[in-house]
Amino acid sequence: MSTDLVLLCGGTVLTMGASQEVFEGGVIGVRGGRIDYVGMPASVPDTFREAPSVELADHLLLPGLVNGHTHLPMSLYRGLADDLALQEWLEEHMFPAEAEFATAANVTLGTRLSVVELLLSGTTTCADGYFREDRVLSAAAEMGLGGIFGHGLMDFPAPGIPDPGDGLSVVEHFLTAHSDHAYQRPAVFPHAPYTCSDGTLVGAKRLALDHGVTFIIHVAESGHELSALREQHGGTTPVRYLSGLGLLDRDTVLVHAVHVDEVEADLIAASGASVVTNTESNMKLASGIAPLARYLERGIPVGLGTDGCASNNDLDLFQEMRLTALAQRLHPECPISLDPLDVLRLATIDGARALGLGDRVGSIEAGKQADIVAVKTSQATASRPLAELCALLVNGTSGADVDWVMTAGTVRVEDGYPVGVDLDDLLGRVRELGGAIGRLS
Amino acid sequence: MSTDLVLLCGGTVLTMGASQEVFEGGVIGVRGGRIDYVGMPASVPDTFREAPSVELADHLLLPGLVNGHTHLPMSLYRGLADDLALQEWLEEHMFPAEAEFATAANVTLGTRLSVVELLLSGTTTCADGYFREDRVLSAAAEMGLGGIFGHGLMDFPAPGIPDPGDGLSVVEHFLTAHSDHAYQRPAVFPHAPYTCSDGTLVGAKRLALDHGVTFIIHVAESGHELSALREQHGGTTPVRYLSGLGLLDRDTVLVHAVHVDEVEADLIAASGASVVTNTESNMKLASGIAPLARYLERGIPVGLGTDGCASNNDLDLFQEMRLTALAQRLHPECPISLDPLDVLRLATIDGARALGLGDRVGSIEAGKQADIVAVKTSQATASRPLAELCALLVNGTSGADVDWVMTAGTVRVEDGYPVGVDLDDLLGRVRELGGAIGRLS
Repeated sequence: MSTDLVLLCGGTVLTMGASQEVFEGGVIGVRGGRIDYVGMPASVPDTFREAPSVELADHLLLPGLVNGHTHLPMSLYRGLADDLALQEWLEEHMFPAEAEFATAANVTLGTRLSVVELLLSGTTTCADGYFREDRVLSAAAEMGLGGIFGHGLMDFPAPGIPDPGDGLSVVEHFLTAHSDHAYQRPAVFPHAPYTCSDGTLVGAKRLALDHGVTFIIHVAESGHELSALREQHGGTTPVRYLSGLGLLDRDTVLVHAVHVDEVEADLIAASGASVVTNTESNMKLASGIAPLARYLERGIPVGLGTDGCASNNDLDLFQEMRLTALAQRLHPECPISLDPLDVLRLATIDGARALGLGDRVGSIEAGKQADIVAVKTSQATASRPLAELCALLVNGTSGADVDWVMTAGTVRVEDGYPVGVDLDDLLGRVRELGGAIGRLS
Repeated sequence: MSTDLVLLCGGTVLTMGASQEVFEGGVIGVRGGRIDYVGMPASVPDTFREAPSVELADHLLLPGLVNGHTHLPMSLYRGLADDLALQEWLEEHMFPAEAEFATAANVTLGTRLSVVELLLSGTTTCADGYFREDRVLSAAAEMGLGGIFGHGLMDFPAPGIPDPGDGLSVVEHFLTAHSDHAYQRPAVFPHAPYTCSDGTLVGAKRLALDHGVTFIIHVAESGHELSALREQHGGTTPVRYLSGLGLLDRDTVLVHAVHVDEVEADLIAASGASVVTNTESNMKLASGIAPLARYLERGIPVGLGTDGCASNNDLDLFQEMRLTALAQRLHPECPISLDPLDVLRLATIDGARALGLGDRVGSIEAGKQADIVAVKTSQATASRPLAELCALLVNGTSGADVDWVMTAGTVRVEDGYPVGVDLDDLLGRVRELGGAIGRLS
């Protein structure tokens, strides 16, 4: 169902907008894929008087969640080489698996699986990074997932770039070819300081600046990376190194940023760059816990990511919210007790801002994309204050409680099932390929 | 459906028994509430040739999970005063809420809600601790949840014990009155070293020894407790203190044990006492991460618990497994990468042993209680080795994937719904009371 004019009725609306409004029994008017009105039924504009409506009583309506870091095609590698530390997992298992299996067709297949999982669990925007990213972006666009899609770069042969010397031109071609999507923006994604030379990093930044797109990079993820940088680049640390190369600015997204000291946090804050933290992945790969207190107290924009499925096992951002709140209380140097509203902001409006998408998504406000998620709740939510609703969402909700999802005005999930996707066919293909991939481990 | 003779067919059976057998397309023969046969269909004993059968193809069959620490009635306080550190949460919110609301009827109501949640998420055995524990044990027995039920004791007025001086006699009466249940054992549960005098602790242990029951105690949970003990008892630490009072032996279950040094771990190991860790609760209340490596390398029996719903928000032991594996990798002093099989053992056979119930539950072996859980799986599990099945269960399964549950030969969950429970009525009552409790916060 794609609709020009539709009214969403009866739910409790958490706008996550600037004034933190909550409308119990509220109404959202959607027009041409955008939010036209949000508020109480009594004040609905006349244009909506005869519009078709969707009844969402007994639901909490949220802005679609923003997943700040994904590798969508990697859902095919879920469960492969579980439970190893980062470096062994990456070099001995992921890179070889991708070398064999990350064909164009499989990149599309894995992306399709991930997009279904994201939509079903309430995420409507992602910031992705992978190779053959044209395939990723196209599949996401077709299925209605918005966001930023960063084409990978590194100084080793990679899927679609057998000769690393071709990397920058492949990425430039990608940026040019995909500059005109309404809801998907191309971006540049050099993999990490330890897999890209300074030439590649600087070249990638130049491309990003030339095309006005985001520069996404994994940085300061693990202790291993710290040692590698110290050896390769004369005792420096990852964020100092990137800063020294002039790579940090408002269009830079630093992914992970687990091992970052106070001075480096100052550098990030001064540059305007943002951080995306991936709690579950960082725990699973024994990387550590990011010092969010350091970022938040400096006003650095922070978002939450699941990372790829292979280092997380799912793409459920509700779980990521809960786990982030739990883990942050135990940070060894700067523990912080985030309240549930703050955590929900990281997964919505603050996460959107961290990706430079704060004017488009992340809250239910007039003028924004109609990306709306309905969470069914068996608990009495009537008359609960905002803080309690947020606690319910962060501490007591999982992606499986998401019932209905709209992106840019089109319904993508209805009664917990994806709309317009042949799920049996998709899962059948994934299972078939999974058998072959499984034999690698 | 209570059955004398029944055959469970078609699933992949993870026995978790001594020889770690997995039977693909296996069969479990249940007789008089116990497991009589487990293996392949070809060798089923003749007695089962004409027995009614339950078809469980496309399921993984596991022993019912063992939740080593619960406060069942506290599901009524879920979400109350979320996100505080332990001491403020306990003294300023939980104790006052319980003083007002922990009536006998409400203890039954909260227990019923928790038992439904436990069964639905695959737990069939718990070790509970609360006040008015006769009500808890009776409700659990009626609904088919087995385990240990510890009656609370402390030196403050408590639900059902307005005068703390009556504590020991109330508990003794409880032990005597409930000594003859088939699947529920009474136990003694002095709350903690900082809420019980040494006289109360020693008296509780004497009662436990006299009645041959388990002694359960919260210990070394938070930094606050360490300071309190240092002040009250001349510089000692919690486990040293309990050891000095002669409270540690094979029938002692130490709950939490977050702040325990090497010497204390030696004391625990020498005594034969066991430990139950509660990762999510310890993170939520900012208490810390228990040093499981210290316990496991000494052969101390370890189980997993969710703790009460108010400090966890759910009773899902699958989540607890996953979170324990994640958190243990980041322990500040003794990180350990538990493999998924080890984690699953903590939630089944090892957890059962930690509670002294290893001869009755925790594995699918002939002679044990027929406590069996079926997890539906859409992923191809045929021919997968045990390690991969365990990884799937620990990293990629939640309680919501549990489809069918049997305890002591009686079916308790069918198609994901509780059998013989009026769920609407139960949730209606909980919701009604929830409104009143909510007004406290």
